[in-house]
Amino acid sequence: MDIKFVKRDVLKEKPDQKNLGFGKYMTDYMFEIDWIRGEGWVNPRIVPYGPIEMDPAAVVLHYAQETFEGLKAYRTKDGTIQLFRPEMNARRMQRSNERLCMPSLDEETFVEAIKALVNVEKDWVPSEEGTSLYIRPVVFANESALGVHMANEFKFVIMCCPVGAYYPEGINPIKILVEDELVRAVKGGTGFTKCGGNYAASILGQVKAEKMGCTQVLWLDGVERKYVEEVGTMNIMFKIDGEIYTAPIDGTVLPGVTRDSMLQILKEWGYKIHEEHVAIDDIMKAGHEGRLEEVFGTGTAAVISPVGELVYKDDSVTINDFKIGELTQKLYDELTGIQWGKLEDRFGWTQTI
Amino acid sequence: MDIKFVKRDVLKEKPDQKNLGFGKYMTDYMFEIDWIRGEGWVNPRIVPYGPIEMDPAAVVLHYAQETFEGLKAYRTKDGTIQLFRPEMNARRMQRSNERLCMPSLDEETFVEAIKALVNVEKDWVPSEEGTSLYIRPVVFANESALGVHMANEFKFVIMCCPVGAYYPEGINPIKILVEDELVRAVKGGTGFTKCGGNYAASILGQVKAEKMGCTQVLWLDGVERKYVEEVGTMNIMFKIDGEIYTAPIDGTVLPGVTRDSMLQILKEWGYKIHEEHVAIDDIMKAGHEGRLEEVFGTGTAAVISPVGELVYKDDSVTINDFKIGELTQKLYDELTGIQWGKLEDRFGWTQTI
Ligand SMILES: Cc1ncc(COP(=O)(O)O)c(C=O)c1O
Ligand SMILES: Cc1ncc(COP(=O)(O)O)c(C=O)c1O
Repeated sequence: MDIKFVKRDVLKEKPDQKNLGFGKYMTDYMFEIDWIRGEGWVNPRIVPYGPIEMDPAAVVLHYAQETFEGLKAYRTKDGTIQLFRPEMNARRMQRSNERLCMPSLDEETFVEAIKALVNVEKDWVPSEEGTSLYIRPVVFANESALGVHMANEFKFVIMCCPVGAYYPEGINPIKILVEDELVRAVKGGTGFTKCGGNYAASILGQVKAEKMGCTQVLWLDGVERKYVEEVGTMNIMFKIDGEIYTAPIDGTVLPGVTRDSMLQILKEWGYKIHEEHVAIDDIMKAGHEGRLEEVFGTGTAAVISPVGELVYKDDSVTINDFKIGELTQKLYDELTGIQWGKLEDRFGWTQTI
Repeated sequence: MDIKFVKRDVLKEKPDQKNLGFGKYMTDYMFEIDWIRGEGWVNPRIVPYGPIEMDPAAVVLHYAQETFEGLKAYRTKDGTIQLFRPEMNARRMQRSNERLCMPSLDEETFVEAIKALVNVEKDWVPSEEGTSLYIRPVVFANESALGVHMANEFKFVIMCCPVGAYYPEGINPIKILVEDELVRAVKGGTGFTKCGGNYAASILGQVKAEKMGCTQVLWLDGVERKYVEEVGTMNIMFKIDGEIYTAPIDGTVLPGVTRDSMLQILKEWGYKIHEEHVAIDDIMKAGHEGRLEEVFGTGTAAVISPVGELVYKDDSVTINDFKIGELTQKLYDELTGIQWGKLEDRFGWTQTI
């Protein structure tokens, strides 16, 4: 791919690495490429990060034809920069886009575009413990047209921002509300995709959870409201009687890259894994019987989030005395070890830039 | 409301009224108002229609926090312009926005804004038989922020375009595919709202229907895939043994303004109406037994769309020999009569501008 580069006159000042937060500082540049029906992907370019002109009748503003991805670039101790399984994001975006009737970049071009942008933004990849460069590819229909249809023009953009350690004071267990009214996804819908509509629909649940003193929502299946699915922006795993349970990837749950990586590590470590529909009643029961040993969410942002308490209707269970579990900590150390290059990458997951 | 007016230097040329299509020609102006947390709605203005500057990290482009509405202004024979039940759209948008955690204009301001814009665009309201001015209010989160959350900044825009008669050659019955795999909505989700995500999720079904020679999709419920819900952008009604059946408004179906109006007219005419969940199997059975007398979709765009054929799995039924039914035609004449001021508005549905 022949990427045009438009230089900006003045670079932004880099923020304090101890105070990065999430998404507060966009870098100097973004990658852009357009798709036009009949022509395909045209005009790849890296340009100064800044506003895009959108027609008020752009399809994305009315019918939400849009999908996104999220991954990170990590700086290792020797200063090199590496990506973690970017091809997984490329493939997931392809599956999202098929469901949403949108065109995709092929895997190679997707990864190449990310590498080209991160290469330009090398100096933005922070080096403080636990920090990284968050990379956000997004594609949306920007044709101007008011009829609901498969759009004829799309824009694919990659933007980046340095992000801080998710838990600056160490990993903190969270309290989660099991949502039994609102529904996030149902088979035949878009649950397995990273489309905007899934997230818009989830905000009300999040607000409700926060009102009840919880940090996140655990969604149940949309048909019976009985089986656990996933958390707001994480998959979720349960350790019961020494074995691991997590929802299967069969249409309603996002196939998380972190989830897949954790499962591979857990298999290697000899854990028995059940990718199956587990009823929330069984989870709560295991909790009350002292058999629910650990619960944790998995996702790119936090890597792993220990769950200290589950609130479901009038019931609640505390997990591992609201302390991070042994396996949770071990998984965190293992995966972050690979991501930041402290441990050998025996799975071949990282790609150096 | 004190609306600022920014005049444009040169007005666009008005298109040929015989060839308007749908959404091809945006008018000269749009209404805009912004919402900022802590301040509320600020800076109402009517400005030249044109591109909006959006940050690539705007919430709407990633998480689809967006809802819209659709209604029309009609020119009557004596030249006056009237709106049809705009307060219904105001209230529906409020319900949509509550579900999506978005701020709403109050009913009065919503209608006032529409009237102000249509008043400026009077000359754009066409007078040819069956034509009207389509009005599209849309609200979206335009705060720049990458975390999933209730946004802090929104933009509300109203745009207009003159639209042609939906059926320039008279009303044509359509062939509809009953979708039994993909799902549009489920209870606890966003089916009752006009949020972008619903429409993005529906495009694949529409593409599938078109591949099978059908014009539209009839969605079934997301839990049992058994009960009829609605069509792409229309509610749907069935006349069986002289009585009317349509899905109830209980969370998964859009509460259509046309649906509500038709039901009121039908009640006045003495029809027995069943707002209940009807199984597609019962519809097909009624069709094969010759008891399915008429089927029609209802929506602002087409007013009424007679359905000539239903295709479900390996089965199909033809309705009324693929001809428009007597009641369908009568309803069309009645409602369009009121909308274009040819019949007395005995329900008090129209508002003159
Ligand atoms: C709904 C949802 N589930 C799960 C995940 C975790 O996916 P990953 O591990 O690829 O970050 C995310 C975050 O991307 C998400 O948004
Ligand atoms: C999904 C859906 N159902 C039904 C309708 C019909 O609603 P109305 O009669 O208010 O136009 C529409 C169109 O607005 C729609 O998009």
